Amino acid sequence: MFGPVIDELIDALRCLPGVGPKSAQRMALHLLDKDPRAAGRLSTAIEQAVERVGRCQLCRMLTEATECEICANQRRQPDLLCVLETPADLFAIEQSGSYRGRYFVLFGHLSPIDGIGPEAIGIDQLLQRLVDEDIKELILATNLTVEGEATAHYIGSHAQALGVGVSRIAHGVPLGGELEYVDGGTLSHAFSSRTLL
Amino acid sequence: MFGPVIDELIDALRCLPGVGPKSAQRMALHLLDKDPRAAGRLSTAIEQAVERVGRCQLCRMLTEATECEICANQRRQPDLLCVLETPADLFAIEQSGSYRGRYFVLFGHLSPIDGIGPEAIGIDQLLQRLVDEDIKELILATNLTVEGEATAHYIGSHAQALGVGVSRIAHGVPLGGELEYVDGGTLSHAFSSRTLL
Repeated sequence: MFGPVIDELIDALRCLPGVGPKSAQRMALHLLDKDPRAAGRLSTAIEQAVERVGRCQLCRMLTEATECEICANQRRQPDLLCVLETPADLFAIEQSGSYRGRYFVLFGHLSPIDGIGPEAIGIDQLLQRLVDEDIKELILATNLTVEGEATAHYIGSHAQALGVGVSRIAHGVPLGGELEYVDGGTLSHAFSSRTLL
Repeated sequence: MFGPVIDELIDALRCLPGVGPKSAQRMALHLLDKDPRAAGRLSTAIEQAVERVGRCQLCRMLTEATECEICANQRRQPDLLCVLETPADLFAIEQSGSYRGRYFVLFGHLSPIDGIGPEAIGIDQLLQRLVDEDIKELILATNLTVEGEATAHYIGSHAQALGVGVSRIAHGVPLGGELEYVDGGTLSHAFSSRTLL
């Protein structure tokens, strides 16, 4: 409404996840009116990140170096490898502080309908690592969706054929989750995966 | 967590209104992983906007030209002027399509505690316009807060001294608002401002 430059800014902001027309407008006005210095900083940060961030050659995670900090960290357990679908999953696990091994990020899952085969998500690279390195346990932490399960199954069977131990993270009722509000699929999974005490 | 460039991007995204650490992280990963082309576009759009967007010399609205599209539009009623606190208010009124006059944007409200006096929000410029132009009605559309009301009162009394007609937009129960869910302040305002049929 107020000339092509502002309209373009509002439109460009809508590429961000969870940002609709109203939020984009509010963000644009905030950047222009309240915080032009932050706007300059944001523009530079995006430019720098797009230019300098690539993939780790070992785990495919986003990083500025050839190897990400986790792969380069000698204090990480070298014989534990956790397979994930997205970098966001990696952030979540790191923030929980519950895992001290290394990762492998698929950036997606097997999806033959969309033409996404094993190579597209780096499974060949992953299996090569299982051959080259001395990995004792491969933890499959793909999502509990049809595609995530299929991907886990595919990787799991190939890894077992290479003689590597394979595990799957537990799925069930979340901590603090009240049974009343948990969906049926999760409940039935929690029952079928129950453990003897 | 993954090097200074990504951390700086996540941090810079938090300057956007309504974006906390989790959303900023999701946005950064989206820009880097899923949509690097949109990231480039966004960075350019912000840079361009900060560089080229200034204020309209008549109404103080954000614009790329010396006069904004509304002030330059000859089909707008020239004798109606609406006073607003923020550009977002202007967007909202324009999108409702309920007003065909011109605007004056204060970019704030009177706030002596923060050292914001009449000059800081352009009231001198506004009163000069009332002297120079043939304005029949000044519509006060500042917010119904203590500061907004004080600002409206200040502008209103000065405008009346100049012989200009002054009005205030109506405040009351919103359309579709159920009385049960409307706050007490709004309800008491709706009663005290009731109109005879």
